[in-house]
Amino acid sequence: MDRTTFKKRLDRCCSLMKDAGLDALLLTKPANMFYLTGDGRLCAFAIITRGGRVALGVPRTDVEDAGWFAHFDHIAGFDDEVGMIHAIAHYFKEFGVTQGSLGLEYSFLTQSMMTMLTHPHAKPDGVTPTDCTPLMSALRIVKDDCEIDLIRHAAKAADAGMAAAVKAVKPGVTESAVAAEAERAMRLEGADGFWKTYVSAGERTGIAHGLPTQRKITPGDLVMIDLHPVVNAYSADLCRTVCEGSSSVEQEKAYEVYLDAQQATIEKIKAGVTVKDIEETFRGMLNMAGHGEHLFGPLIHGVGIEFEEAPLPAGHAFFHGEKAPEALKENTVIAVGNCGLYLGPWGVRVEDTVVVTRDGHMVLTNFPRQLLLEL
Amino acid sequence: MDRTTFKKRLDRCCSLMKDAGLDALLLTKPANMFYLTGDGRLCAFAIITRGGRVALGVPRTDVEDAGWFAHFDHIAGFDDEVGMIHAIAHYFKEFGVTQGSLGLEYSFLTQSMMTMLTHPHAKPDGVTPTDCTPLMSALRIVKDDCEIDLIRHAAKAADAGMAAAVKAVKPGVTESAVAAEAERAMRLEGADGFWKTYVSAGERTGIAHGLPTQRKITPGDLVMIDLHPVVNAYSADLCRTVCEGSSSVEQEKAYEVYLDAQQATIEKIKAGVTVKDIEETFRGMLNMAGHGEHLFGPLIHGVGIEFEEAPLPAGHAFFHGEKAPEALKENTVIAVGNCGLYLGPWGVRVEDTVVVTRDGHMVLTNFPRQLLLEL
Repeated sequence: MDRTTFKKRLDRCCSLMKDAGLDALLLTKPANMFYLTGDGRLCAFAIITRGGRVALGVPRTDVEDAGWFAHFDHIAGFDDEVGMIHAIAHYFKEFGVTQGSLGLEYSFLTQSMMTMLTHPHAKPDGVTPTDCTPLMSALRIVKDDCEIDLIRHAAKAADAGMAAAVKAVKPGVTESAVAAEAERAMRLEGADGFWKTYVSAGERTGIAHGLPTQRKITPGDLVMIDLHPVVNAYSADLCRTVCEGSSSVEQEKAYEVYLDAQQATIEKIKAGVTVKDIEETFRGMLNMAGHGEHLFGPLIHGVGIEFEEAPLPAGHAFFHGEKAPEALKENTVIAVGNCGLYLGPWGVRVEDTVVVTRDGHMVLTNFPRQLLLEL
Repeated sequence: MDRTTFKKRLDRCCSLMKDAGLDALLLTKPANMFYLTGDGRLCAFAIITRGGRVALGVPRTDVEDAGWFAHFDHIAGFDDEVGMIHAIAHYFKEFGVTQGSLGLEYSFLTQSMMTMLTHPHAKPDGVTPTDCTPLMSALRIVKDDCEIDLIRHAAKAADAGMAAAVKAVKPGVTESAVAAEAERAMRLEGADGFWKTYVSAGERTGIAHGLPTQRKITPGDLVMIDLHPVVNAYSADLCRTVCEGSSSVEQEKAYEVYLDAQQATIEKIKAGVTVKDIEETFRGMLNMAGHGEHLFGPLIHGVGIEFEEAPLPAGHAFFHGEKAPEALKENTVIAVGNCGLYLGPWGVRVEDTVVVTRDGHMVLTNFPRQLLLEL
């Protein structure tokens, strides 16, 4: 990503700020800072004015390093929280922002961080905070080709992680050990890191968020594996369910129902279709098969710098500070299969990362979709 | 941890709530929920009344699973955010909490979550939110023997992770690949997961938060490795810096200065000593050696369910919603060496997890402290 990419992003940001009546943004969320400046380090801030001026604040130790990655007009190093507050105040003055509307990340900032960033020593009295979550999502929701390439690379790392995880599934192996092999393989395939890895086995596949434990896999267990590698700041999302040994007829039937619904949903994806439409296809098929009571959470969400970002289905979006999603646009990336069938004694789930194209879609995650392991 | 442990914790919680004038707590932070109920799953809540009544809300799919781990009087499953809000409202009614003071986790809740939990359909009008961060920290700051054992196990996992990481340090190996070996070894040593792993090499050891990248190690590089495994919900914190090949005299000198300061600080630790005192010992020795300008962030913090928790040094604590720390008590656990010497072209850091005892201290992380690798 070159200077032109960031210049374009900044121009679009300024245009959206004008539309939203925002005079400045004060960002601390790494994903948003990365998108607009090229650097999303921890414990840092970016101020962006409607006129397109960009100021960064980073730990004093990091000024030179940030200079290698970030695009900005001004940079300041600070020593601690008090220094950060003073640096923010300094830029408000420097940029002549003494009143108006200031965009803050309400879906990211804790109460404590909010208090700090709006401290009277930081923010001028006349400046009123408002939520910039929808603006940042509007900016990031359509990916450029370079972003798609990075998500494709992340999807490749996810496939490699899944291959290593599935290979590790054996009686006596812990959920955590399966996660270990997946994470290692993703890093060796180019991931700089990953969001939480989920691995659950047996009865634990029946819960909504199966983080790995020391539970050992036993013969006949279903094993659910959900991976989210990060490659050059971009993520992918991949989930598979496999069976150690022989599955029951009931498990195979549920798996088939789920996979059919997921695949039919993916088939519907193209520019112009709404998230509501495809969620209804997915949910409708599961309901029809009698699984309406076995779901929890949204079936679909966006993928990008974050593995879970806009677009989110309307109800979910509302509680996460997002606007209800518009019709899907070309080059939006979504994960299909975020929620499984949770049947109590076990559950099944299949999730893929999919790019919306003008006439259809492109599935980026390719690990085979099958319950039974081929040995 | 048996029922008695959680009964005792709840009794102490109720006593602190009385002192603080709190009528109920509404918790969603996994670490706090785990401490008081034995279960800290994602996307769940706990309401705790001053009278010691405990209600849980979890995804509908998770009601049975939560029943295996959690201690509570009531449990409800919900379908989505609206269901969660209604479940909260139901418990307020059930417990007769219609007015008074409600403790919420201000250092954890985003603006969006705050809006959801205090939605008029959830929280009765007469109930006023206030921050319960200091109360929860006061509860958790002194560990019982069972907690110390778990932190000791986590420290053992950290040592195993460090051994694997250091073994992986070779020219041509990426920072991310070093992290992979550490993470895998920690999981195989009993970790269910870990907080962010930091691995930085060469010039990247000079920045404050060196997350791993695809940068390859080259001969003569310093490599800084910071690990935070989680074993049965408890964490440890371990950092080492090693040199690939031959270090410079300047690097050796800085390392010695840092290690001397860290060890002298650890020597001072015992019940009754203040965090301020030991921070001043550490910082004082680094300042004296001319490194006052090479620091960023607090040198010391607490360790427990979270790898970074109370006690925090006073200034840092203020901005994280914590009270300034009291004198250290027996069975508080702290990490010593949270901030390194960041010298620009490189940095050095050594961090250990230490239990405060009545007459001194006990260092839980034991990986050798030496810059040069023994091959």
